[in-house]
Amino acid sequence: MTEQNDASTLGVPDANYDRIVRKTGVRSRPVAGPGQYTSDLAFAAAKGLLAARPHTEVGALVVCTQTPDHLIPGVSSRVHGLLELPNDCFVLDINQGCSGFVLGAQTLVALQKSFPTEKSAILINADTYSRLLRPDDVTTRVLFGDAATAAEFSTRPEGLRFLYCHSFADGSGYDAFVAHGSALRSSDQPSGIYMDGTAIFNFALREIPDAVRLALSDNGLDVGQIRKFIFHQANSFVTAQLVKKLGLSNEQVPENCAYMGNTVSASVPILLAEQLPLLQPGDIVMTVGFGVGLSWGVALFEYVG
Amino acid sequence: MTEQNDASTLGVPDANYDRIVRKTGVRSRPVAGPGQYTSDLAFAAAKGLLAARPHTEVGALVVCTQTPDHLIPGVSSRVHGLLELPNDCFVLDINQGCSGFVLGAQTLVALQKSFPTEKSAILINADTYSRLLRPDDVTTRVLFGDAATAAEFSTRPEGLRFLYCHSFADGSGYDAFVAHGSALRSSDQPSGIYMDGTAIFNFALREIPDAVRLALSDNGLDVGQIRKFIFHQANSFVTAQLVKKLGLSNEQVPENCAYMGNTVSASVPILLAEQLPLLQPGDIVMTVGFGVGLSWGVALFEYVG
Repeated sequence: MTEQNDASTLGVPDANYDRIVRKTGVRSRPVAGPGQYTSDLAFAAAKGLLAARPHTEVGALVVCTQTPDHLIPGVSSRVHGLLELPNDCFVLDINQGCSGFVLGAQTLVALQKSFPTEKSAILINADTYSRLLRPDDVTTRVLFGDAATAAEFSTRPEGLRFLYCHSFADGSGYDAFVAHGSALRSSDQPSGIYMDGTAIFNFALREIPDAVRLALSDNGLDVGQIRKFIFHQANSFVTAQLVKKLGLSNEQVPENCAYMGNTVSASVPILLAEQLPLLQPGDIVMTVGFGVGLSWGVALFEYVG
Repeated sequence: MTEQNDASTLGVPDANYDRIVRKTGVRSRPVAGPGQYTSDLAFAAAKGLLAARPHTEVGALVVCTQTPDHLIPGVSSRVHGLLELPNDCFVLDINQGCSGFVLGAQTLVALQKSFPTEKSAILINADTYSRLLRPDDVTTRVLFGDAATAAEFSTRPEGLRFLYCHSFADGSGYDAFVAHGSALRSSDQPSGIYMDGTAIFNFALREIPDAVRLALSDNGLDVGQIRKFIFHQANSFVTAQLVKKLGLSNEQVPENCAYMGNTVSASVPILLAEQLPLLQPGDIVMTVGFGVGLSWGVALFEYVG
């Protein structure tokens, strides 16, 4: 279902609403329904993917989530069972936030080299942050959407070819984004997501331009040779600052946070899927994830048609 | 701290205590103290490992846990910060139970091929199941211990050389081992771990002998050529049945669950570390993990001295 960021839904005066929506660029966001949990969204995404590829032999199923149904077992186990996949399958949950598509791709590309070439690896990115947002924290609530995506990694020469990945971490920024009371550590804070927006914003502006430039120089590319930069959709304000700092054209930097919000690790693959029909063979795409952890990463793909 | 499985601690009559301890073989288990969370155990384990290897350059830090401090961010982020590791580091939590060392090793070996050869990858296996065990579920409580281990994966020709890994899953057995009320899905069951012991036992006896035989035949080995089988320490009864089914000698199958219990994904690396001093160069070791998910896997290593 869709939740509008309007003044009455958020319970704030019109003036505050205008300021929030103008700054973040998020007008509405998908939100999981009362009986919908992460594994339900993940299963639906994977089922849709596999329906479009009826002969896919799944050798690995990895779910990236920070909002699992249970701590034990992982969401991937439930999805494996619901999809009735074969027992000869590598099944694992990984936990990362807004960098989770990039780190997940890095993991699956590495793992896939150890599987028989006819087998595909499926990466699901699925989260329901709405269940952990504090109702009174309006400035954070307006940002996040719930979503799931499923992507196939195979050796078939179609779609996007993986070229490069480099990921980074700074655990000294652990406290900048924490869901208190969400698992086993006790806390004297109110339960729910606590985000130090300024710290996260400063981190993104400090680290992401350098990571992008490193990926370019590692591959002998300049910014003009990247057809699309698929930035994690933190919000419009962050994206605008990155565009400015890196000297990118607006045409290179698509956005969808106006109607998706920040869908955590699903954000990059959702935007990537939207942009695929616009690509030509040979186009280079850079995906950039960053957020909680702190964690960030850059991956390069070539569209092969 | 250590918790004894004695009748008064467990609050059961002497007769029941004798039956439980005789069958499971677990006499005492390590249990996390009141202020000790998974990230604290994980940090201590990694700190100990790196103190013994002062010049290790860490390129990846992966924590396998099902009992994180928080859902957001992962335990690995906190440990990365506490260890003051460099930003140029792949940092990720993975969620698996008793198969977690085998699947973790498979993941790290695959990832490491994409890093510069001088960099090490650290795998931490850490859990505090005691916080999720229901006090009234004595037959499950007596089995599980809390622990953390840290293992280094490097290209240096020392210790154990990774030879082979094959992992499996059966999500149709998802309900056989669930921690209700532990994350976001609501439940009308009492919160805590629910284990269908009979289902897990039958699964282990059905699947593990075949997985062991497949690993042997894939590598042209017979059981006599394996110096040590490091089985996940579910309990003595399960191990005895596996020994019998596979026709192994007791000398090949060390155990430590009498004083460690079942320490989830830390179980295999703890027993492996105990056995290392007994190995000779050229010895082949088979590690076997199995449990919640359902998930299982077999890895082969050669001791190179």
